[in-house]
Amino acid sequence: MTTQTETSYRADAAATARIVPSFVQGAWWSPSPSPSPSIGAAVAATGVPVRDASTGEVVALVSCEGLDLGAAIDYARSVGQRSLGDLTFHQRALVLKTLAGYLNSVKDGLYELSDQTGATRRDSMIDIDGGIGVLFTYGSKGRRELPNSTVYVDGAPENLARDGSFGGQHVYTRVPGVAFQVNAFNFPVWGMLEKFAPAFLAGVPSIVKPATPTAFVAEACVRAMVDSGLLPEGSLQLVSGSVRGFLDHLDVRDKVGFTGSASTARSFSAHPNVLEVGVDLTCETDSLNAAILGPDAEPGTPEFDAYVASVVTEMTAKAGQKCTSIRRLIVPRERMDAVADAVGARIEKRVVLGDPRAEGVTMGPLASLDQRDEVQKSINALLAGGGHVAWGSLDAPLVTHADGTVGPAADGAFVSPVLLAFDDSDAGAVHEIEAFGPVASMIGYDSVTDAVRLANRGGGSLVATIASADPAAVATLFAGIAPFHGRVLVLDGSVARTSTGHGSPVPHLVHGGPGRAGGGEELGGIRSVLHYMQRTAVQGSPAVLTALTGQWRAGAPSRVDAEHPFRKSLARLRIGDAIASEAREITLDDIGHFAEFTGDTFYAHTDEEAAAANPFFPGRVAHGYLLLSFAAGLFVDPAPGPVLANYGLENLRFVTPVSPGDSVRVTLTAKQITPRETDEYGEVRWDAVLQNQRDEVVATYDVLTLVAKE
Amino acid sequence: MTTQTETSYRADAAATARIVPSFVQGAWWSPSPSPSPSIGAAVAATGVPVRDASTGEVVALVSCEGLDLGAAIDYARSVGQRSLGDLTFHQRALVLKTLAGYLNSVKDGLYELSDQTGATRRDSMIDIDGGIGVLFTYGSKGRRELPNSTVYVDGAPENLARDGSFGGQHVYTRVPGVAFQVNAFNFPVWGMLEKFAPAFLAGVPSIVKPATPTAFVAEACVRAMVDSGLLPEGSLQLVSGSVRGFLDHLDVRDKVGFTGSASTARSFSAHPNVLEVGVDLTCETDSLNAAILGPDAEPGTPEFDAYVASVVTEMTAKAGQKCTSIRRLIVPRERMDAVADAVGARIEKRVVLGDPRAEGVTMGPLASLDQRDEVQKSINALLAGGGHVAWGSLDAPLVTHADGTVGPAADGAFVSPVLLAFDDSDAGAVHEIEAFGPVASMIGYDSVTDAVRLANRGGGSLVATIASADPAAVATLFAGIAPFHGRVLVLDGSVARTSTGHGSPVPHLVHGGPGRAGGGEELGGIRSVLHYMQRTAVQGSPAVLTALTGQWRAGAPSRVDAEHPFRKSLARLRIGDAIASEAREITLDDIGHFAEFTGDTFYAHTDEEAAAANPFFPGRVAHGYLLLSFAAGLFVDPAPGPVLANYGLENLRFVTPVSPGDSVRVTLTAKQITPRETDEYGEVRWDAVLQNQRDEVVATYDVLTLVAKE
Repeated sequence: MTTQTETSYRADAAATARIVPSFVQGAWWSPSPSPSPSIGAAVAATGVPVRDASTGEVVALVSCEGLDLGAAIDYARSVGQRSLGDLTFHQRALVLKTLAGYLNSVKDGLYELSDQTGATRRDSMIDIDGGIGVLFTYGSKGRRELPNSTVYVDGAPENLARDGSFGGQHVYTRVPGVAFQVNAFNFPVWGMLEKFAPAFLAGVPSIVKPATPTAFVAEACVRAMVDSGLLPEGSLQLVSGSVRGFLDHLDVRDKVGFTGSASTARSFSAHPNVLEVGVDLTCETDSLNAAILGPDAEPGTPEFDAYVASVVTEMTAKAGQKCTSIRRLIVPRERMDAVADAVGARIEKRVVLGDPRAEGVTMGPLASLDQRDEVQKSINALLAGGGHVAWGSLDAPLVTHADGTVGPAADGAFVSPVLLAFDDSDAGAVHEIEAFGPVASMIGYDSVTDAVRLANRGGGSLVATIASADPAAVATLFAGIAPFHGRVLVLDGSVARTSTGHGSPVPHLVHGGPGRAGGGEELGGIRSVLHYMQRTAVQGSPAVLTALTGQWRAGAPSRVDAEHPFRKSLARLRIGDAIASEAREITLDDIGHFAEFTGDTFYAHTDEEAAAANPFFPGRVAHGYLLLSFAAGLFVDPAPGPVLANYGLENLRFVTPVSPGDSVRVTLTAKQITPRETDEYGEVRWDAVLQNQRDEVVATYDVLTLVAKE
Repeated sequence: MTTQTETSYRADAAATARIVPSFVQGAWWSPSPSPSPSIGAAVAATGVPVRDASTGEVVALVSCEGLDLGAAIDYARSVGQRSLGDLTFHQRALVLKTLAGYLNSVKDGLYELSDQTGATRRDSMIDIDGGIGVLFTYGSKGRRELPNSTVYVDGAPENLARDGSFGGQHVYTRVPGVAFQVNAFNFPVWGMLEKFAPAFLAGVPSIVKPATPTAFVAEACVRAMVDSGLLPEGSLQLVSGSVRGFLDHLDVRDKVGFTGSASTARSFSAHPNVLEVGVDLTCETDSLNAAILGPDAEPGTPEFDAYVASVVTEMTAKAGQKCTSIRRLIVPRERMDAVADAVGARIEKRVVLGDPRAEGVTMGPLASLDQRDEVQKSINALLAGGGHVAWGSLDAPLVTHADGTVGPAADGAFVSPVLLAFDDSDAGAVHEIEAFGPVASMIGYDSVTDAVRLANRGGGSLVATIASADPAAVATLFAGIAPFHGRVLVLDGSVARTSTGHGSPVPHLVHGGPGRAGGGEELGGIRSVLHYMQRTAVQGSPAVLTALTGQWRAGAPSRVDAEHPFRKSLARLRIGDAIASEAREITLDDIGHFAEFTGDTFYAHTDEEAAAANPFFPGRVAHGYLLLSFAAGLFVDPAPGPVLANYGLENLRFVTPVSPGDSVRVTLTAKQITPRETDEYGEVRWDAVLQNQRDEVVATYDVLTLVAKE
């Protein structure tokens, strides 16, 4: 798409490395070759070199110097908003699903690139397949849990006038700006897609800013997405390089999602456009996640084994470079040695450190030498703060190279797994210092209350594990730590095999946490879609609220005409189309017969005296299910037609009992119409109201039907 | 309760004014008399003098110098958390309801004090009755919309394992800290109670910090609440005076709610404990709310009249000192004069400026001379920014004094209503400067799109009105402005009489707005209760999730024993108690008979050939309502017992069609138990699953019953 990248070289060790391009305003873009005054008019371009994590070889340069970020933002707000605005939630969801399928078919290329970041195949699976899985989930949830329109109705209608002429409703509408997404280096694909998918579904265009060390993987993923031809114009842009001033361009229309360090989050939060103009900023920062070994989880129990397995997984997957990794092991004080032994034994048995391209390697290097140095600094700080090595070694590790030989790490960013332990469980270091690598610290607790207190000393975390099969301990631990955590995993023998794991956010559940974890929330199904939308309380007449929400509401106009609404296909049916039935008398015989026929001989229907003694009934009354059945008889149109099936019913309330001699009639009004994108039919929700001969409401409910499009 | 206030005098003009006490750690507290070195050991106490808004007479002094705020916060976190934690949602809601009734019975005293703030009777009603109304609403919604427990379950269960052995659920648990509430001066009662009620319902103790000019009204209200004897220990504390350093004491456990100026909000937002530690801060700041006159709303239409009436109400109620007041009139350019004339005429006819204690006065002074000076400064800035007076006068007004005489305002904080107009609709001043008094500005628009753009130039507002009866105009205006607004009122002739008004937040709907409006959300029913709680995704086995949520979940243990669960009162019934019925065959005769009996002769039940042509049915199938009715016959226990009634049904889905010759059986499991606080019964929700002879799920639903406690 551009030839600039091929001509952007440097004259040093990185001479053969390409500059990772950006994708802005619908085209690929790279920095212009800049004339170097010292060598004359050479075509030297500069950029931050990114090295293969295992070998140190430069694999790419990252720079977007000269990129017009303001223009990219304007493009998103205009072109991106327009093209996404042309689609409904269901149409956007279908794009996500199709895109997921496409990425699945081309993911091998991403795996190859991912090798260079130090990721093992399993690490890459978490990143790449995990990211594709997010698209699939939103592709599915978007069509199941959102209407096929562009406005999301939140909660129940509120009536605000005695005569029903004025009411309120909460609705979400998309924000009219851009979703600016600043991602972390550890999951270049998943981290991007887990922010992109909900923004896209909401209808808000994304500008993605990957972290430099793995920007080349994110770029490859964006290239695949662009090549798929599925993305609406302007819905996704990529900025490969530093864009420090991005917040200067944003305002109240825009959303910023950030994953990374607490200190960067803080600097964003203090920006005037955040504090004064109201740029909405969601942060997800690394946290000191705890794993609590329950008082019942003695060695030999399934909970102890599951705990140890989980700790080792979290220490070594992605070489511990996960914001959700376990950093603090909180264990019964007397069991600290047993845990250290078991963790060490499992690491020795399972973990082979080396270049992920070598056979048998199960743990790769950190993403960069900078990261390695950072981790070593943090380990030293933890040691200085009272920690000691409970298992592992701080020496430079021997590693398996790509050719299978074992030797010193050379230029690779390798760190061995290390388990530290603290005698003083309240040492500040263990609750404050995060070594973002294969490093965890263990402290002891004396009581369940003590364990709660220690876990919460993390100051707010993304996730915690409670490994226990003791219901009382689980209840106390959960109640104590829940308000400090975005996610809590209760691990016991029954879920040891099927658990999705401590460190794996799932798209169905929120990912984020209070306090130190950044205070944000991502994922959680539709919850994160709503994050890209504004909730507005709208007040007005039932007619206005019906028009603005796409959901018919009691008191709004309805149309009863000669043609039964069940004879109208989706192409002709309109919200408010209704049928008002004749009345049918309910006789004592009906009730008696129904009781006998169905076997529902509950005394309220069969025994006058007993029924009259019931606080709610005047005497024998009709079965609720008899009323529903008769109502169906009153509103149904028997001949084949566009209404294919009644697939359910919701919100049924029996309001007034029906006595023998009373009559009931039903009003059925088309309340919501949801054509399906991929079928020849859709859902129609009907508002049903049963009334008696005194016009009292007998029952209300929604009838759910499938109706053909044509 | 204390005699300190009686001895805290000053030797100046305020000598007879008392210092408004605080209520901390369960007792009334006032600053100690401090020895004044210049007059020896005099008992002079100091404080900020508060003056009667109409007369300038000092009515109170405000100070909490020497108050141990840290101790008050600790008290809330310990004693307050404990006493509120002993109560369920329903029990807390009942306290709110009872408290509302108590305040209603003693509100006359509050009205008298409120006079001194410049509030008319009508203004006081908004404040005092409005505040009591919030308590009533939360008292009611808390019992209708929350479980009778302490954990709120959010959304549907998520299954995360193929075999159903592992799943997730979102729950809210209260934060373990304090709700620190900093209120504005304009609504000392409502502003306090609208923050207190949801925090209380969540189980989080409040510390209230009223604004100085009306702190004496807030104090009287707190005194009444304390005197009621209804408040759990530590659930409410009052700090009357400046507590600038309060954020230094707070951390990730705590919530801060602030209503006031944007500049104060900004300074709070930049506090390190907010930025770094994660104190959760919600701000509601004044905004430049717009009222858009629709293109159809010509003079003489009900919409024009309703618009003018609303503008005058918002300009003059509370003398325009409402964060929700209309500040910007956005009207068709050619209709500006007509609007100015009509607004002026209505003000002339309706508004009498003066001391609220005088007969016939309909608009009082501003709350203080400082406020008056601020408003005059803002008017000058608006004029300097291109505005001119469209109606009204900037001269010092003549006002009606308490004795009925009319004359200059003297020491009263009076400002006349003024409508400004701008020729340049894009003048910065009109979109940026808020005169917090009886002042509004008018600008003209050329098209509906233009009106949207102008409204949104407010940079995010609490509320906007759209006065129009043209559905197309309403749709365009709403879609355009919704993302910039927390609330939008659509005003037309049909709601002119019953509308709750542009400027009146209702407890059912959210109050707040993006950007300049502060970015916060209050009220909105249960939404604001959840604001005082942390959402946590919990993962585990169905058994664990059932135990932690109080809602039985598929896959969790259930108990079928000899005693039918319908024979168990709430005292004995447990979640998981179940009945597994016998199977019943469904014959073709059953289906034919049911069709005939009910009148539901839909072809899928009556015509083999037509049914087989339907995409979902293999041939004739049983009615869904027949299955429900037979299921009831299978699970019901006929004799009188603790189960009093089946009052409804939810989430019914028909999953597999039932053909003649198939049989169905039902499993009914107690899913959720909600005893009522004020009745001898409660709600039990049962999980119902119908299965056929092949164990396929035929239908799932929840059965809702009322069950006696004993």
